[in-house]
Amino acid sequence: MISKSEYEKAVERTISFFGKAQIVLTEEEKDAIEVADFGLNDLSHTGLELVTYLNTERVCAKELVLFPGQTCPEHRHPAFGSYIGKEETFRCRWGRVLLYVEGERTNPIKAKAVDGLYTVFHEIELLPGEQYTLKPNTKHWFQAGDEGAVVSEFSTPSFDEEDIFTDPRIVRTPKIG
Amino acid sequence: MISKSEYEKAVERTISFFGKAQIVLTEEEKDAIEVADFGLNDLSHTGLELVTYLNTERVCAKELVLFPGQTCPEHRHPAFGSYIGKEETFRCRWGRVLLYVEGERTNPIKAKAVDGLYTVFHEIELLPGEQYTLKPNTKHWFQAGDEGAVVSEFSTPSFDEEDIFTDPRIVRTPKIG
Ligand SMILES: [Zn+2]
Ligand SMILES: [Zn+2]
Repeated sequence: MISKSEYEKAVERTISFFGKAQIVLTEEEKDAIEVADFGLNDLSHTGLELVTYLNTERVCAKELVLFPGQTCPEHRHPAFGSYIGKEETFRCRWGRVLLYVEGERTNPIKAKAVDGLYTVFHEIELLPGEQYTLKPNTKHWFQAGDEGAVVSEFSTPSFDEEDIFTDPRIVRTPKIG
Repeated sequence: MISKSEYEKAVERTISFFGKAQIVLTEEEKDAIEVADFGLNDLSHTGLELVTYLNTERVCAKELVLFPGQTCPEHRHPAFGSYIGKEETFRCRWGRVLLYVEGERTNPIKAKAVDGLYTVFHEIELLPGEQYTLKPNTKHWFQAGDEGAVVSEFSTPSFDEEDIFTDPRIVRTPKIG
């Protein structure tokens, strides 16, 4: 859980990153910026800031910000009910993002040390204009480079509450105190 | 049909518009820029320039450019086979776009005169950060403002060859001579 003032500081910082990438948001979207600390209360290391443009029954689009060195922790998007799971594409718009997926371990990896349980280490480096598509239910995590990152996400519908995190300490739904 | 040199000029111009919006493309994407003249050979009035980032079995994402005053002509995305038709969201990133959809006629409309068959005139003006979602099989057309426009499209899969244009002269598949 992060404090209200920490949340507001993170929102302002997120808006400044969108500005660097020349991404324009409406006032309503700025008010709806989500700051996910994943229950770890350590935003400078683990977290994700985002705006959801669209999440219909068929399509979802989000714009993500990662602060310098910030990590979105390892998770997967499983099937449930009649849904075959979320297919997710990340397109780097600004900065640099290190994405880790299932597959042969990259050694050494470029990411800074992460705190918690991580199990996939196949590295994909995304610079602006580069993108990568993840099939449903495949584990992944990602970390911004030293300047942070702005990343567009194109996907099938999002059901964040269904995401499965590798680290059992993690809670997806953000709580603000 | 447009000439090879006209095509190349349009590609260069498209890249310069993406630059205005700070949208970065890979070299492969620049090489794959599509210039659609819709068979009318009058790009300065009717046309669309685009890059397809992604078109999987489930999700599609494109980045569109309209030159100043350029119009993407009226069309709809029908159901066919087991596909219920394309759901399409336009998000203005740069410039201004006037979108026309089914519904009460706006009078007068802000768009400049268009050449050809147009039947829907409910106006939606999109400035940077604004977006609009179209359900499948609903007629729509759009025109850039005086400075042109850069527009992100988030959608279900695209099958451009299935699109139905109101004006029978129109051919979607671009031909370059
Ligand atoms: Zn994910
Ligand atoms: Zn359309």
